[in-house]
Amino acid sequence: MKLIIDCLGGDKGYPAMIGGALKAQEIRNDLFCTFVGDENEIRAYLSSHAHDEQRVEIVHAPGVITGNDKPTDAIRLKKDSSMIKGISLLRENDDYNGIISTGATGALVACSTLRLGRVRGIRRPAFCPILPTMTGGIVGICDSGANMDVTPAMILQYALMGSLYIKNVFGVESPRTALLNVGTEEEKGDDLHRAAYALLRDCPFVNFVGNMEGRDLLSGKYDLVVCDGFSGNILVKTTEGTALTLLKKIKTDIYSKTRYKIGALFMKKMFAEEKEFMNYQNYGGSVLLGIEKIVVKGHGSSDEYAVFKCVDQAYAMLKNNLNEQLENTLAQCEVE
Amino acid sequence: MKLIIDCLGGDKGYPAMIGGALKAQEIRNDLFCTFVGDENEIRAYLSSHAHDEQRVEIVHAPGVITGNDKPTDAIRLKKDSSMIKGISLLRENDDYNGIISTGATGALVACSTLRLGRVRGIRRPAFCPILPTMTGGIVGICDSGANMDVTPAMILQYALMGSLYIKNVFGVESPRTALLNVGTEEEKGDDLHRAAYALLRDCPFVNFVGNMEGRDLLSGKYDLVVCDGFSGNILVKTTEGTALTLLKKIKTDIYSKTRYKIGALFMKKMFAEEKEFMNYQNYGGSVLLGIEKIVVKGHGSSDEYAVFKCVDQAYAMLKNNLNEQLENTLAQCEVE
Repeated sequence: MKLIIDCLGGDKGYPAMIGGALKAQEIRNDLFCTFVGDENEIRAYLSSHAHDEQRVEIVHAPGVITGNDKPTDAIRLKKDSSMIKGISLLRENDDYNGIISTGATGALVACSTLRLGRVRGIRRPAFCPILPTMTGGIVGICDSGANMDVTPAMILQYALMGSLYIKNVFGVESPRTALLNVGTEEEKGDDLHRAAYALLRDCPFVNFVGNMEGRDLLSGKYDLVVCDGFSGNILVKTTEGTALTLLKKIKTDIYSKTRYKIGALFMKKMFAEEKEFMNYQNYGGSVLLGIEKIVVKGHGSSDEYAVFKCVDQAYAMLKNNLNEQLENTLAQCEVE
Repeated sequence: MKLIIDCLGGDKGYPAMIGGALKAQEIRNDLFCTFVGDENEIRAYLSSHAHDEQRVEIVHAPGVITGNDKPTDAIRLKKDSSMIKGISLLRENDDYNGIISTGATGALVACSTLRLGRVRGIRRPAFCPILPTMTGGIVGICDSGANMDVTPAMILQYALMGSLYIKNVFGVESPRTALLNVGTEEEKGDDLHRAAYALLRDCPFVNFVGNMEGRDLLSGKYDLVVCDGFSGNILVKTTEGTALTLLKKIKTDIYSKTRYKIGALFMKKMFAEEKEFMNYQNYGGSVLLGIEKIVVKGHGSSDEYAVFKCVDQAYAMLKNNLNEQLENTLAQCEVE
């Protein structure tokens, strides 16, 4: 298992990226990591942290792609950047299995799609981030924004890819899959969603349980929600944003009265846990499903633990031959 | 000011509908209310509650439209229902200015649009619910789901209608208006949203401040967010749902440990306030903008206070001649 670690582009730099990967190596004996970034910086970090020299490699590419770079320009002009270099390595060498990056999302999607190619039969790759549910489980959201122009068949493919991912990486045998819509009734939504509903209902490889409204994402009733990338993006960001806003409001309100401050002393641990519950970093990165090699996008602010989770997700996908399973399923599905 | 109160279709029945309207009459001396529903039930309620007999009227129409009725069937077949009867009264009699209903949304939109007609120049009416912000203000969301198939020009009209509404009913002089999108940069989103962005940016009657991501709805940075009805519906339901889910989780967690229970005793009032903060009923109903008469849709579970707010919203819109202002603005706007 050879994974490429794009050390640049995240907010927390080399310590988070390298530290997270080394943490994953501790529990995965057959994991080899290639660190791409500034050679001196990587070497400096490694020299002061325990690691297995036989399982690390350094590739020098000190350039950074930022959110301000236009993805197509970045690919063309920033060949010395860690992200583009990392993806080129993946493309050119069959030994490399995947990449973990916390860099610019647009460039990562564009470059992965163009350079690495898609799994045979897949129309478009899709992001599938994970959120926690009220019942202690997780829910995947696919697609959370990789594609803006979507067809019903693409949404069906999101369900096929997402189901295999949730099953193989999170151990949910037959993921209950819902379609994000404006109401639960079959006829709800626009033409796109009505057509997607029909495809999902009729597909034997999807455990389709019907439409889901935005309010039920964290209910624990669903393991996977499929959606067009536009509304999926709204769903994920709104869920995270509302939770953080509310926790911030509670914090502010606690400081407004002495009795609240006293009460909060008893509940300190609980509030810390609520915050952790909604901390998406604990649930790993957003996997770009449907690409021939494994691509995991961690949040820009990922810390060491978050990177560790990203690396371990990629490892689990490889270990379970996710893409091979996906090709097999697609071969049995006939979608116009 | 003559408002029609559709007494059926809500969960809390006559007491909420009539009680809320009478409450509004207490502070608005020139408000006349026509209660539509079962005559005996309405009479029974009024006989035991103080009211000004000169300012109430009863119209008998005891049928109910439910969420299971197909809107077009309901209009055709349920002429004795309070909603259809109420809208017919509005249509036939210029004295009536508007309707407040907590009944089935689909039927209300369809029947209002077909029977009452649109403000001259308006392509499609749009819902504009209100949510609270972290900074103590409010934010309107337009459209939250009246239309699923949307054009850029329709989104511009949502901004024009919503701005006038927020200004006249909530007293915000020049509402900061954002477009719901998957990122803040100008080029984000699909063709629809890029084209809408350009129209909004160039319109002198909209205080356009750029794209907004789902996570920032409650930030207080915006007074109005415009969106296609599909993603607007996701935005509103996800915001409400996440907040309620999180509060429910906190409540469950409090009961898990004695020290949390003790702490919560000090904070009882605060938690009640947080719940009230996210209780959409406190912010009135969802106004259907762009219809020639005033149509306010309250939530199905509206209590007396929520209905009072809905009635008072309708009153404020009438008092400020919202539709006349809208016609004037539209006459000055040239949209393809």
